Amino acid sequence: MNQQQFSSSHIPELDRFWAVVPAGGVGTRLWPLSRAAAPKFLHDLTGSGQTLIRATYDRLHPIAGDKVMVVTGEAHRDAVCDQLSAVAQDNVILEPEPKDSGAAIGLAAALLYERDPEAIMGSFAADQVIGPDDVFRASVVEAIATAATHKIVTIGIKPTYPSTGFGYIRQGEKLMIDGAPSAYKVDKFVEKPAAEVAQRYVESGKHFWNAGMFVAPVKLLLQHLQANEPELYDGVTAIAKATEAGQAEQAMAEIWPGLPKIAIDYAVAEPAAEAGDVAVIPGDFIWDDVGDFAAIARLNPAADESGVTVIGETPRVYADDANGVVVTDTSRVIALIGVEDIVVVDTPDALLVTTTEHAQSVKHAVESIKAHGDDDVL
Amino acid sequence: MNQQQFSSSHIPELDRFWAVVPAGGVGTRLWPLSRAAAPKFLHDLTGSGQTLIRATYDRLHPIAGDKVMVVTGEAHRDAVCDQLSAVAQDNVILEPEPKDSGAAIGLAAALLYERDPEAIMGSFAADQVIGPDDVFRASVVEAIATAATHKIVTIGIKPTYPSTGFGYIRQGEKLMIDGAPSAYKVDKFVEKPAAEVAQRYVESGKHFWNAGMFVAPVKLLLQHLQANEPELYDGVTAIAKATEAGQAEQAMAEIWPGLPKIAIDYAVAEPAAEAGDVAVIPGDFIWDDVGDFAAIARLNPAADESGVTVIGETPRVYADDANGVVVTDTSRVIALIGVEDIVVVDTPDALLVTTTEHAQSVKHAVESIKAHGDDDVL
Repeated sequence: MNQQQFSSSHIPELDRFWAVVPAGGVGTRLWPLSRAAAPKFLHDLTGSGQTLIRATYDRLHPIAGDKVMVVTGEAHRDAVCDQLSAVAQDNVILEPEPKDSGAAIGLAAALLYERDPEAIMGSFAADQVIGPDDVFRASVVEAIATAATHKIVTIGIKPTYPSTGFGYIRQGEKLMIDGAPSAYKVDKFVEKPAAEVAQRYVESGKHFWNAGMFVAPVKLLLQHLQANEPELYDGVTAIAKATEAGQAEQAMAEIWPGLPKIAIDYAVAEPAAEAGDVAVIPGDFIWDDVGDFAAIARLNPAADESGVTVIGETPRVYADDANGVVVTDTSRVIALIGVEDIVVVDTPDALLVTTTEHAQSVKHAVESIKAHGDDDVL
Repeated sequence: MNQQQFSSSHIPELDRFWAVVPAGGVGTRLWPLSRAAAPKFLHDLTGSGQTLIRATYDRLHPIAGDKVMVVTGEAHRDAVCDQLSAVAQDNVILEPEPKDSGAAIGLAAALLYERDPEAIMGSFAADQVIGPDDVFRASVVEAIATAATHKIVTIGIKPTYPSTGFGYIRQGEKLMIDGAPSAYKVDKFVEKPAAEVAQRYVESGKHFWNAGMFVAPVKLLLQHLQANEPELYDGVTAIAKATEAGQAEQAMAEIWPGLPKIAIDYAVAEPAAEAGDVAVIPGDFIWDDVGDFAAIARLNPAADESGVTVIGETPRVYADDANGVVVTDTSRVIALIGVEDIVVVDTPDALLVTTTEHAQSVKHAVESIKAHGDDDVL
């Protein structure tokens, strides 16, 4: 499947499509593998041989062609350009400092609006695992067709268990849109629920995980941003106009640091849903945000009968009566004896030993390490 | 307590005493801390600030003065001399290759016999933890007095639990020796017992752990060696005579590699016991052969309420809901989350993760690593 196939289909809106890839989060729960200098999206966490950001690009390229824009931190410029050498310099947007998704996606929308006021953008995080790719792309194509009817469209994930770690999207009435047979209105976005509530959501069949995937006409997205976060709207619009005038660097340096920090969900999606402007395409693909090392264990079944999943370029791991996951970016010999559901993450300057059950607590440990002043390994 | 005190006491045999310290074993169960290039005796495993070999020397020096002989591998010459700078070069015997305790102790006996046929030697491994030192020395002094009556004397350890990991010494009739009120004949040496047998041994009050500590007139020791292992006897005697003639290096190179590999227990102690020539002094001191990481956890109570014992020069360990032992000779940050009785041994090129319960299995892992050709970390 390539862009030509899509372009020659009956959906002319594809020509308006831009894929935007925010590549920002550090992934604290994946410390010490993922950290400020080497965030989650620069790692291969599935043993595929590809970094997550490269896999994201490859997944979108058949739809978006060379219309891919990446928003990342200045510190990651070289690494991102290495990974995505086909992306033009103009399409790599560098944040002087992290400002949450509202500013990152808002700026991308404003920049695209300057280039093409009729652009439809789709925002897809650089650090998620998705598959099969063609099922994902079919959802994106439906989302684009839906967005073209003046909607902000989220691709929801059919929940596979009653997670209390994700927000949910409640499906409303069915929409009748050409080229988008599975589009529904969004009734509302709901926050991370308690366990019993999550159970009811799953049983209802009408709630989807909010994976932060949005497809929207940039004009409509900016309208809602202006209405809800005028200061943020003014800032990103000013940067976008300065960029068109060849003043990008100066404008970023002057305006970006003062922008409000707010998630795109609060700045745009939730108020737009209240206004009846949001639709959902239920995604029927595998999705994982690789939130912790338990996810890595889940996504990488053990290669041998010993039951230890090993991720690393030059692993030398010996397991005796042990199971769990080892992630290593050293060439040290690692011996595991008599440990169950163990998680060992081995990096040159930091080592984590925990269990899959305690994988969520890694964030807390990182806070302790920071509090003790050992920032050199964060 | 110093040599002067002992020498001025009523035990003239002290003047004949030489302490021999075999410093050989790698301590495979303490891998990857202990290994060929940095064996157990060169580590501080008790947090005392001293290596085990230095502590052994300091423990013996008040009795032996400068009559301390060390037998070690050629590879460890510099490290041993660094640790024991007061030991004369003539008293550091270098093995071209490991040949078990029969050759090491046999050669020491032969060398001492050339210097003083009336010498009494005591052999004390370089990698055991013992205390209090003065209680230990009192046992050694009794052993010397007993040895002077033409006995090979072993210092037995009163068992604190029914270990199946040690051989036992069965006490025979009481001996009446001036200066050795607690000396007994040895009935026999018994191999590592099954659990039920070990339990009976402990209850009997007449069985002691064989800690491999022997005190004997070199003449008597060599007589038994000649009778039981004539080839070994001839070899070490030839090397000793060549050494006296200034031909040590050549003789070692020619003769040593051909010597039989046999433990001193089989070459001398057991047949001597059958001949009625062996006595035991029951030692009433704390003794630990630091056989595995469970021993290290036992010997080093956790310093803080988190329950993690940390051994290392520059440890940076964070524990959250964890207990066990961390041994590190790197300055990496180590985070432990939600793991119990964990053993983490962190070295620049190898990492071990196990539990105190599985500490004995480390030896097996080392064999696997060797079989896979990763000898660089052994």
